[in-house]
Amino acid sequence: MNVLIIGAHGQVGKHVVEKVKDYGHNPVAMVRDTDQVPYFEERNVQTVLADLQGDFRHAFYGIDAVIFAAGSGPHTGADKTIIIDQEAAIKSMELAKEFGIKRYVMLSAIAADRPEIGPSALKHYLYAKGRADEYLRHTDLDYTIVRPGGLTNDAGNGKVYASETINQRGTIPREDVASVLAHVLTVPHLEGKSFDLLSGDQKIEEVFAK
Amino acid sequence: MNVLIIGAHGQVGKHVVEKVKDYGHNPVAMVRDTDQVPYFEERNVQTVLADLQGDFRHAFYGIDAVIFAAGSGPHTGADKTIIIDQEAAIKSMELAKEFGIKRYVMLSAIAADRPEIGPSALKHYLYAKGRADEYLRHTDLDYTIVRPGGLTNDAGNGKVYASETINQRGTIPREDVASVLAHVLTVPHLEGKSFDLLSGDQKIEEVFAK
Repeated sequence: MNVLIIGAHGQVGKHVVEKVKDYGHNPVAMVRDTDQVPYFEERNVQTVLADLQGDFRHAFYGIDAVIFAAGSGPHTGADKTIIIDQEAAIKSMELAKEFGIKRYVMLSAIAADRPEIGPSALKHYLYAKGRADEYLRHTDLDYTIVRPGGLTNDAGNGKVYASETINQRGTIPREDVASVLAHVLTVPHLEGKSFDLLSGDQKIEEVFAK
Repeated sequence: MNVLIIGAHGQVGKHVVEKVKDYGHNPVAMVRDTDQVPYFEERNVQTVLADLQGDFRHAFYGIDAVIFAAGSGPHTGADKTIIIDQEAAIKSMELAKEFGIKRYVMLSAIAADRPEIGPSALKHYLYAKGRADEYLRHTDLDYTIVRPGGLTNDAGNGKVYASETINQRGTIPREDVASVLAHVLTVPHLEGKSFDLLSGDQKIEEVFAK
């Protein structure tokens, strides 16, 4: 399975590429700059050069599933939040539909479905992520929306807690988020599902077995 | 007809209040701050205090039609663009639906349906406006979306040019935009329509007679 990873050179994206490989799929790293290519070539990972702010339809040829892990991040300008996190995400869904790609996994953020409870500095970011997520829910793609809590750079331990709504603050290593994104790709009963995600005490495979 | 004017104290909004009155309707000016109330009281205009960033559902009681003329403007922070121009607009559509209000007139912006052709400094703004407009088109409200070109403070002369798509740059006085917003309220064949708008050489009533 060829898995297009949008935002492959990002902090989560790099882990996603590795995890997708670990799960036995073929990652295709979508990157913006030519100087991001060697990083993936050294790791024997196929790349496709494409700019989310331009026309990136050529990236979808031959792709079987999409993981959207791009993010302007909550700390860049809010104009980029609209352009990347919301609009480029929506455009990628439209392209997936157009190319007949069914499986689409979205890296969202905890509380993106409840922006009003978010801290005011993040509210616009949560609205934009939430708007993209809502758009995805109204497509006929086989989507899974993963909404992690605060991201850390700790090494992952493969143990998480997932629930439709988690009403507590918490964190999770980027590596574990990446493992979940890669794992859910091939869990059919998670199609059409959205969930919050934090570090926990149960193995990823067990958490999503039910 | 009680017409809720969202953003009544704005530069276009103040004109809208006057024009709605001129057309024989009863404007209800939705304003955020108590110190914006005297301006309308002096003009015998009913006000309702409500914050677009909070819960503003109480503003919809007894309302027959909505004109959304609020705008954070393209020059405020882009976080407000998401929160006001996009999300508060969408919320107001949901409230109109909930209260059984059918008629909804949106003040949009030229090229909001084609953000990719907009200048890069305005792109995020056009995306947000366009996203709200698209949401409106997917409701079952009797909407009209008005997309004026560059707004000026010149006195209006009541003459405009309107077309589904206008492929030229141009301006229009805020007063004339307000006249159009008030006029289209009672033009049934404009329900479900969107159009670009510039100054022109034909009277508003004639332009929209066909």
